[in-house]
Amino acid sequence: MPALPDGLVQSLEDVATRLRIESIRATTAAGSGHPTSSASAADLVAAIFFATMRFDPTEPRAPAGDRFVLSKGHAAPVLYAAWAELGVVKREELTTLRELTSDLEGHPTPRLPFVDVATGSLGQGLSVGVGLARGARMLGSDARVFVLLGDGETAEGSVWEAAQMAGHDRVANLVAVVDVNALGQSGPTMLGHDLRAYQRRFAAFGWRAVTIDGHDFNQIVPALRRARASRQAPTAIIARTIKGQGIAEVAGREGWHGKALPADAAERAIKALEAKLHHVPPPPVHKPTRRKLPSLQAQPAPAAPTYGEIATREAYGDALVRLGTADPRVVALDGDVKNSTYAERFLAAHPDRFVEAYIAEQNMVGAAAGLAAQGFVPFASSFACFLTRAADQLRMAAISRSNVKLCGSHAGVSIGEDGPSQMALEDLALFRALPEAVVLYPSDGVSTDACVQLAALHRGMVYIRTTRMKTPVVYGADEAFAVGGLKVVRSTDADVLTIVGAGVTLHEALAAHDELAGGGVRVRVIDLYSVKPVDAAGLLAAARATRNRLLVVEDHYAEGGLADAVREAVASEAITVHHLAVREIPHSGPPKKLLERYGIGRGAIVAKVREIG
Amino acid sequence: MPALPDGLVQSLEDVATRLRIESIRATTAAGSGHPTSSASAADLVAAIFFATMRFDPTEPRAPAGDRFVLSKGHAAPVLYAAWAELGVVKREELTTLRELTSDLEGHPTPRLPFVDVATGSLGQGLSVGVGLARGARMLGSDARVFVLLGDGETAEGSVWEAAQMAGHDRVANLVAVVDVNALGQSGPTMLGHDLRAYQRRFAAFGWRAVTIDGHDFNQIVPALRRARASRQAPTAIIARTIKGQGIAEVAGREGWHGKALPADAAERAIKALEAKLHHVPPPPVHKPTRRKLPSLQAQPAPAAPTYGEIATREAYGDALVRLGTADPRVVALDGDVKNSTYAERFLAAHPDRFVEAYIAEQNMVGAAAGLAAQGFVPFASSFACFLTRAADQLRMAAISRSNVKLCGSHAGVSIGEDGPSQMALEDLALFRALPEAVVLYPSDGVSTDACVQLAALHRGMVYIRTTRMKTPVVYGADEAFAVGGLKVVRSTDADVLTIVGAGVTLHEALAAHDELAGGGVRVRVIDLYSVKPVDAAGLLAAARATRNRLLVVEDHYAEGGLADAVREAVASEAITVHHLAVREIPHSGPPKKLLERYGIGRGAIVAKVREIG
Repeated sequence: MPALPDGLVQSLEDVATRLRIESIRATTAAGSGHPTSSASAADLVAAIFFATMRFDPTEPRAPAGDRFVLSKGHAAPVLYAAWAELGVVKREELTTLRELTSDLEGHPTPRLPFVDVATGSLGQGLSVGVGLARGARMLGSDARVFVLLGDGETAEGSVWEAAQMAGHDRVANLVAVVDVNALGQSGPTMLGHDLRAYQRRFAAFGWRAVTIDGHDFNQIVPALRRARASRQAPTAIIARTIKGQGIAEVAGREGWHGKALPADAAERAIKALEAKLHHVPPPPVHKPTRRKLPSLQAQPAPAAPTYGEIATREAYGDALVRLGTADPRVVALDGDVKNSTYAERFLAAHPDRFVEAYIAEQNMVGAAAGLAAQGFVPFASSFACFLTRAADQLRMAAISRSNVKLCGSHAGVSIGEDGPSQMALEDLALFRALPEAVVLYPSDGVSTDACVQLAALHRGMVYIRTTRMKTPVVYGADEAFAVGGLKVVRSTDADVLTIVGAGVTLHEALAAHDELAGGGVRVRVIDLYSVKPVDAAGLLAAARATRNRLLVVEDHYAEGGLADAVREAVASEAITVHHLAVREIPHSGPPKKLLERYGIGRGAIVAKVREIG
Repeated sequence: MPALPDGLVQSLEDVATRLRIESIRATTAAGSGHPTSSASAADLVAAIFFATMRFDPTEPRAPAGDRFVLSKGHAAPVLYAAWAELGVVKREELTTLRELTSDLEGHPTPRLPFVDVATGSLGQGLSVGVGLARGARMLGSDARVFVLLGDGETAEGSVWEAAQMAGHDRVANLVAVVDVNALGQSGPTMLGHDLRAYQRRFAAFGWRAVTIDGHDFNQIVPALRRARASRQAPTAIIARTIKGQGIAEVAGREGWHGKALPADAAERAIKALEAKLHHVPPPPVHKPTRRKLPSLQAQPAPAAPTYGEIATREAYGDALVRLGTADPRVVALDGDVKNSTYAERFLAAHPDRFVEAYIAEQNMVGAAAGLAAQGFVPFASSFACFLTRAADQLRMAAISRSNVKLCGSHAGVSIGEDGPSQMALEDLALFRALPEAVVLYPSDGVSTDACVQLAALHRGMVYIRTTRMKTPVVYGADEAFAVGGLKVVRSTDADVLTIVGAGVTLHEALAAHDELAGGGVRVRVIDLYSVKPVDAAGLLAAARATRNRLLVVEDHYAEGGLADAVREAVASEAITVHHLAVREIPHSGPPKKLLERYGIGRGAIVAKVREIG
């Protein structure tokens, strides 16, 4: 391998030196942040942006362009400095780092046009990279995706879930660069500078893995360029680096994670770095080969089928197929339960837009966020309880305002014999607490179909909760649904109370309604299919009309679900909210028996209404 | 390696045949369940229990005895059949599988004495095994831990987090047996029967890894015995198996995951299996070498320090040290943030009871559950937002009624400049929704110390939420706290409203109280340090005394936290609950500015009280 031209090396050295200077300056100005983690990565970042990637800095989200994901989000200063070097961020803005009015936050967020997803919870960037890379391929783009990881974060299992998918599916347009500076936050990393150990792991997961000196451009650039050219397998570049490289007083020293340099030390460091400058301009950025990529335009959807008795999980599968026929942006992801969630129907209909994520829910959600960042509308589904496995990825997707859709099947005790490990009873609490997330919980085929279409139309995260057991049809085919809506399903002027249900408990409430009506007791029944946002006005109107009394029934633990949503909505008025929910760890058993045993079945509802009087 | 004695092989073959027969019989009786996944593992299970483990079946949780964890929990029938073979479960009980009144649930739970933790959410057993194995070592026991994994579940990153800890810390008394039957739920696994691929992965993570035929006792037993004798590294036994082995009509066939055989097919299969029986008794169980293990008895704790202004996270570290001095059962686990959570103080004081889990929170929580199952009282800490990474492990620990304690630091927007990725704003929603979990949220050094002691005394999961910033002392050194308690911190007979805060918002409420009092407006202030269970009577009494008005202020998103807990508690009466919470995705910035910017600081509280009037 011939050495790089001296001019290029000097130019890259200058870029890296400036990245270090700006990282020190910004963090010292902020009084906090990560100059040492930025410094270890500075040469790698310089080489990725200025000697490898093909992209247009003015169109960072164009599918034709290479993407960069800073998985080690705490090195945000070096990212911001790189985009200043590219002319996208004003250099004087860099010292507004971490200020309330600056978009240069402590860890990167997509408030910035060149950030696809928020990072800062470690170990998530590679999954996003897999999604971006697969998305590029689906679009017919030959763009590559570069993900910079810290060594410490490879301890997260999610990294190996992502590595596994990339290796198994030969995602050759993905490049992981691991910044092995050997120091974590609170001490040395597990593997220190044992580059071979990292190499063995990536190789074992199906990657081409190479080791380099992460401060030698004559090793960095050729490794990156070979990786960019790979057609067979994803490439991992394991780079030996020094934390704080270029800052003599802290380089390679413990105790300097996440600390800004004091002003005097910063001044000394900057002076020393400035003395190293060759004062040459940065290398020109390589633009992508312009390629006309197909634009993804939604067509009118085929007519909805006529739904009869059907499990909402099955209606989900059918609706997704229909949606996918109309909208080429729709992709589906599965965690090896596609025959239970009915995502398998999408696989059969649209195989080239189906991603099998196997039993690795964290990566499934991370990859979905990556696909969303390429303009797709990903629907990821699993048992609702197993989506909790990806709670932190969901949290970060919410912070990213990612356009991901989740479907959790097999909610609640109504799944029956499989027992508590398979019952989602806290999923509503999880999704309600995610900022800006929409939570939908349909009860029949018609409303499920509507919820799937609503999810696709809504820009942002949507969660759809489905049920294992079959349920009868409630709505006519032309019934209209809306995010933030509810349906008054039964009502008379003589109603003494309103029962609020959703999903399976709507059907229990309807059965209870009929039994009570037989005894001359009239109750109103509301289908709260939009759990978040919730129709407060609709709930208040029903409560006022029924003696200010609501009874919420939910197949969920008592905390964080339907009742909390309802109480929040009506808190401004003196409404009494009664509540039936699962209040103990449930047991295996037949679904109908469990609904009654845990106090949310028709019998329990009738008894509760009679008790309320 | 000489062949095993024919008698032993025949005896093991009979055990395995009976395990298959009982698995078929039980699942067919139940009408659901996993006979094929049980059948693939039957020979492995027979060899583990009857030719390898040293344990006393009548004392399955004795620290001197080897342990077995069925990570692939859906193979529950084979586990129950094994314990029937051991005489612990009555054979006639096996066909009560999955019934509401039977402890033989669809997936194993610790309602059964021989189950340490609930399994059924895949990929979690190896972490529990690491905890059990490390716990045995800490107790001076030479017991081993055997974990049976499915091949499909190795797709979960948590498996590699566990593998990594075991490899790095040379947990040689841990044996993983991977049942490679090549079929997942909805299709073939990623790696099929590529045993070498599994071997490479475990080897890359520091394990001794061997491949065997999982249906040949002459390969299974020697591999297990060598693994049991390992002193250097954990051992992974990668076993090639056939899903449904021994059941001719379904063996190796797709489409038979999680399906009971129809009655006629079951009858044919059982008949064919019975024909294979040699009719010899099972091999005798090897009892453990009896060893007197030190009994862990708590001593009186050293006196609490006198707390002044201190961050509750720091007080947590000090309290944990004090607790650890008194109680040898207390261990601490960290996710490489011990210098932020102050768990590092426990490391300094009690290094032999400290487990560094690095940046791998799922395994940290799983290992904690394993340690708890050995009788320890584990305290696992990280940033509160990163505990969400382990949401599914926490869910399973709750179902297991595991005696684990979690501490989440850096809660809320009050952490400041690091930005939203590091701010826990949904952790209360997560922990409140876990069944039987206790949630404590102290506000000063004294209450933090008390919460740590309360957590240790409480049998079951406890979550403690701590704050990054320093807060002044609120309580005298002898103040008493209780799970389910609250404190009325300010009160007069003229109070017009009660402000409910906790943690950092208690201090904001106190400041608001003083400012309002200066203007002649009297408000009551409650410290709701016990978020779950919540003192409903105390809240109702305060509300009634203050014009039926509460104002809840929390450094958390609006859903699932303090206000939901308060509204649930007072729902039976006509109490108006006002609410200040974080209602948008927050930004980086200085802590005090963020508290006001997001409407939960003293200024916002004063304004809200004046608005309420």
